[in-house]
Amino acid sequence: MGPHPAVAAIRLAVRRVLHDLLTEHHSATAALPHEPPPPPLVLVACSGGADSMALASALAFESPKLGIRAGGVTVDHGLQPGSDARAAEVVQRLRELGLDPVDSVAVTVGRTGGPEAAARDARYTALDTAAERHGATAVLLGHTRDDQAETVLLGLARGSGIRSLSGMAAVSGAGGRYRRPFLELDRQTARKACMVQSLPVWDDPHNADPAYTRSRLRHEGLPALEKALGKGVVEALARTAQLSRDDADALDAWAGRAEATVRDATGVLECAKLYALPPAVRRRVLRRAAIAAGAPAGSLFARHIEEVDRLITGWRGQGAINLPGKVVAQRQGGRLVIRQG
Amino acid sequence: MGPHPAVAAIRLAVRRVLHDLLTEHHSATAALPHEPPPPPLVLVACSGGADSMALASALAFESPKLGIRAGGVTVDHGLQPGSDARAAEVVQRLRELGLDPVDSVAVTVGRTGGPEAAARDARYTALDTAAERHGATAVLLGHTRDDQAETVLLGLARGSGIRSLSGMAAVSGAGGRYRRPFLELDRQTARKACMVQSLPVWDDPHNADPAYTRSRLRHEGLPALEKALGKGVVEALARTAQLSRDDADALDAWAGRAEATVRDATGVLECAKLYALPPAVRRRVLRRAAIAAGAPAGSLFARHIEEVDRLITGWRGQGAINLPGKVVAQRQGGRLVIRQG
Repeated sequence: MGPHPAVAAIRLAVRRVLHDLLTEHHSATAALPHEPPPPPLVLVACSGGADSMALASALAFESPKLGIRAGGVTVDHGLQPGSDARAAEVVQRLRELGLDPVDSVAVTVGRTGGPEAAARDARYTALDTAAERHGATAVLLGHTRDDQAETVLLGLARGSGIRSLSGMAAVSGAGGRYRRPFLELDRQTARKACMVQSLPVWDDPHNADPAYTRSRLRHEGLPALEKALGKGVVEALARTAQLSRDDADALDAWAGRAEATVRDATGVLECAKLYALPPAVRRRVLRRAAIAAGAPAGSLFARHIEEVDRLITGWRGQGAINLPGKVVAQRQGGRLVIRQG
Repeated sequence: MGPHPAVAAIRLAVRRVLHDLLTEHHSATAALPHEPPPPPLVLVACSGGADSMALASALAFESPKLGIRAGGVTVDHGLQPGSDARAAEVVQRLRELGLDPVDSVAVTVGRTGGPEAAARDARYTALDTAAERHGATAVLLGHTRDDQAETVLLGLARGSGIRSLSGMAAVSGAGGRYRRPFLELDRQTARKACMVQSLPVWDDPHNADPAYTRSRLRHEGLPALEKALGKGVVEALARTAQLSRDDADALDAWAGRAEATVRDATGVLECAKLYALPPAVRRRVLRRAAIAAGAPAGSLFARHIEEVDRLITGWRGQGAINLPGKVVAQRQGGRLVIRQG
């Protein structure tokens, strides 16, 4: 008798990613002439919750069969009393699964961008450091299709276009370090896999705290949307993420090529050439130009770009437009000058 | 003292659209040499609800100032007892606003595509017929930003990509007949404008009937989403519609150009050339090819195209792929043959 279907599903998802990593590892080390390459090390980022515990168990099961070393990292955000004891417990559980090395990393969460963003920044910095310290090839993250659906809705709420609808990538970070094997798997499967493997899991109280946007979305917003639109909403949102990502990539590539064709000999943007571009491409060229001039990408919103766009499409003698990062966009005759002022 | 802000807002929205229509009308009739062009006729589609009553009142107010004739049409869907008396009442109200001609058109709603789609199809057919009978230049529709937000969420639930996120267009239909002046105006403003003008409005019980997806979305889904994500959700969804529409248009244009470059001398698709396209463009080329071969656009889903795409990107000797409309996609050596089989 094979494993429970939920366990089979998590293992298959991890096996696929490990195969990809091995293929990449072999082609990267094939050039080294004299010695066989050392076996790659893959770390799992584990909070002790169901998703990442399921991921850790699947990694522990699959990695030896592929000659991959498997380790784990848990991040102690220090946001709740007893979080250090909890981290020690997660380390213990990961070791019991056979992972080695296993680290607990304590971080200090700042305040930049709100509590969720600050915790995320601190977490990824800690994971990057751990991956580099151990020379790990990759760090696996337990984000599920449900997390992806929530991320798409959070992006939708920004109303800033399809890039923000594209959710989390299956492969991200420096050199493709971060991998998300569960992005097409639902949360329920991960939870079930822990249950049938008798893995104790920890429910982070933050996940149920209505002070957090994501928690409100998970417990109220998405269920209400499913009630109105039917059970396929999570899957539809995840599919939207993938399609939007591909679309955004293609349009970014187009804008990159177009940008070179709309500048004059001195590198200044020409309004007539910008006007001739499709609006979707023109707005991306303007955004790139604003960022190149020093505007911070994270503070540059769709409404900023729309205002700059009206210098091209709705010219009626407007004055200079102030953008974040003290960048100024100004029409001068047939030219659009964007620079730090 | 000027009009109430809500009334000013609905009038401004209508004035802008009438200006556009006049400009188009003049350039279309400028070529006629001998007589001054007849004044254009603009119809309002009116259910008697707040949105379309507000629209009718603004049209009645603005059109004489611009030398535009204004009329109205109400569609009796025959779905509720007494709907004919209701239609007669709406006709009466539109005449009281000074609109002329005013028609009531009774339609028979079929069953194709579900109750909401069938009612919509019957309604647009009736509006098309009325516009043609009266020689109207345009038909104004009362869809608001809230309707747009709902339409985006309905598209999101299909998970079929950014075209389905692009909602309703401000200009649509044959020759740009349909115009939606209120697409950036919220429902509350239309309702307020009716109230301060003492216009009686009718609340369609269908709009509150939880048997209808849109009604569930309006009364449960969207409020829950706003509670989780904040008050700006409707605006963000409407902005997403506009950005998605522009993005989808640009990518469709790219796919149209690309399609000509990926066929061999006999017009058959070449796999290597398809492979070299960005995924977002390749999938659109495949979709166009399937539709050209006879697949009905409405039955062709993202998953169909993904399966055909794997003949290019994940070739491992798969058999022919069956698509809607008896269309078959098949790899033959380095060629992809898509035809009705």
